[in-house]
Amino acid sequence: MIDISSIVISSRIRLARSLNDYIFPGMLSGEAGYKVIKQVADVVLPLGDYKVFTMQQLPALDAEVMQEKHLISKNLLENKDYGAVILSDNQSVSIMVNEEDHIRAQCFLKGLSLKQAYDTLEPIDNALINKLNVAFDSSLGFLNSCITNVGTGMRASVMLFLPALTLSSEIGKIINLLSNQGLTVRGVFGEGSEAQGYMYQISNARSLGVSESEIISKVTNYALKVCEYEMQARKRLVENDEITIKDRVFRAWGILTNAYSLSANEFMKYAGEVKIGIALGFIKLKDNTLIDRLLFDALPSSLTKIANQEALNETEERLTRASFVSKTLKTARIK
Amino acid sequence: MIDISSIVISSRIRLARSLNDYIFPGMLSGEAGYKVIKQVADVVLPLGDYKVFTMQQLPALDAEVMQEKHLISKNLLENKDYGAVILSDNQSVSIMVNEEDHIRAQCFLKGLSLKQAYDTLEPIDNALINKLNVAFDSSLGFLNSCITNVGTGMRASVMLFLPALTLSSEIGKIINLLSNQGLTVRGVFGEGSEAQGYMYQISNARSLGVSESEIISKVTNYALKVCEYEMQARKRLVENDEITIKDRVFRAWGILTNAYSLSANEFMKYAGEVKIGIALGFIKLKDNTLIDRLLFDALPSSLTKIANQEALNETEERLTRASFVSKTLKTARIK
Repeated sequence: MIDISSIVISSRIRLARSLNDYIFPGMLSGEAGYKVIKQVADVVLPLGDYKVFTMQQLPALDAEVMQEKHLISKNLLENKDYGAVILSDNQSVSIMVNEEDHIRAQCFLKGLSLKQAYDTLEPIDNALINKLNVAFDSSLGFLNSCITNVGTGMRASVMLFLPALTLSSEIGKIINLLSNQGLTVRGVFGEGSEAQGYMYQISNARSLGVSESEIISKVTNYALKVCEYEMQARKRLVENDEITIKDRVFRAWGILTNAYSLSANEFMKYAGEVKIGIALGFIKLKDNTLIDRLLFDALPSSLTKIANQEALNETEERLTRASFVSKTLKTARIK
Repeated sequence: MIDISSIVISSRIRLARSLNDYIFPGMLSGEAGYKVIKQVADVVLPLGDYKVFTMQQLPALDAEVMQEKHLISKNLLENKDYGAVILSDNQSVSIMVNEEDHIRAQCFLKGLSLKQAYDTLEPIDNALINKLNVAFDSSLGFLNSCITNVGTGMRASVMLFLPALTLSSEIGKIINLLSNQGLTVRGVFGEGSEAQGYMYQISNARSLGVSESEIISKVTNYALKVCEYEMQARKRLVENDEITIKDRVFRAWGILTNAYSLSANEFMKYAGEVKIGIALGFIKLKDNTLIDRLLFDALPSSLTKIANQEALNETEERLTRASFVSKTLKTARIK
């Protein structure tokens, strides 16, 4: 068994559910929208430490922070009228109400933990199905607004850090391989398919005609296969080009700990290089998950919140990011 | 009076003298070459703490170090047969024998010190003229192998650090202005006219029909004028673009103190940026001349010598430079 902790960042299970008694959220009127929020909240709140946030009442900055942390989608953020999110206190469970479907329940966990994430969501999902009139067809499965979400309505995804496969350009081959197996690969943080910080999201493309456990097994097994390829690519990278890679890592560290102004994109890029250094043991931090947290904390709205500001213009944002990142990294390093 | 210490790096006076009894060094046979060395040494050695090094006996690495420090020229370095240099113990006076002319006496001093440099050379020059048959024509002045060195045989040059004029692209205008005044501007460390590390050498183009003191006054006065332009350009740079310039300075510092591998050209480039930061007060070092010394010490042969090695291949050289520069700079910084 290889050590995948330097490759797999996180796992997410998302379940889409629609309610029979309401038209799809895209066509929903305000009042019916509130009823949906109330119905879902009434089921979920008794199940644990959950809080409801309506997009109407949530301060804009808090909503943007949630979006940056992927707790809510851009789609929900823009649904000011009757969008809401029910969040667990530890933020691992987030249930969006009146997003593309009436209910989008998701669970995020660190590492390769799709099974655990599903185990966390299942009782909530069961409660929703038992108590609400969830759209279900005995031959098709759950019915949702988009055909790709008909069936289990499940999307299982893992976020992977694949610098060696990216640098060696083998990633293209891997993406083809996964596509042929019914899996989707997307760059994370990047526009379109371009991955920033060497981060990729792998998920099932289909939700119909497969069981939940089949989806979880498939994504998990292929993620493990990709981990193996990445480990081999890292080994070759160090064997063939240790000096170049070390130099790249340490320069990135030098820039992140010294820059006076830093854009989010640049941070992403150099953070990816530093993560390579951590993965290969060139740089040691007190906490190896620090960079992954920073990747979210250094995003514009989260950063504004951390800096105790209401808003930052672009220049202020870059200066704040530079000093925040520099201070955080310097104190975290083990020499 | 403006503070020019962050602009003027050093001053150099060079005097070319030829001997009547010998053909020019380019045509000289070995035996006559030795005679020239002996005659010059006999005059100079009694005048102070001088040592003679013949190119034949000087170890190759030591000769290359001398060339990197501009104590000898490439031309002399290649004249293995009968080239020699007479060096003062503090290395401020260097008298090349059998370079392009029989005698090339030069004095280097820090700061804007052309007069002092000439005062240092003059007694040596007088002794040479009194005791040797130096080629001199009463109407033309000193005669030398190249027409540009006929007359005083003097070249007075100052090395200037002109980042703001370079970044604002005003340097072109300055170079034109100086050219029209009979001065030559050259990039230092760079190939051709391209200046690396924002360093430029200004010197008199002519040696004929002007007196020594006229040359010194002219170069000094124009150097001071350029200093004034540079100071104004720096003021504008900070006023218009402080964030950009600070960011550039600190990133350069980050790279120089963290890179794992560093080429001489890259070092020159980033050292120039760090020098801007020192000049503008963004970075404080215990010794402000440190970077100027590093600019020589980090050159390939000097670095090899400092690392106590006989030779370094290109990879070793880059690794050695990176760790030497990083260590030196880190210990020098005042936080």
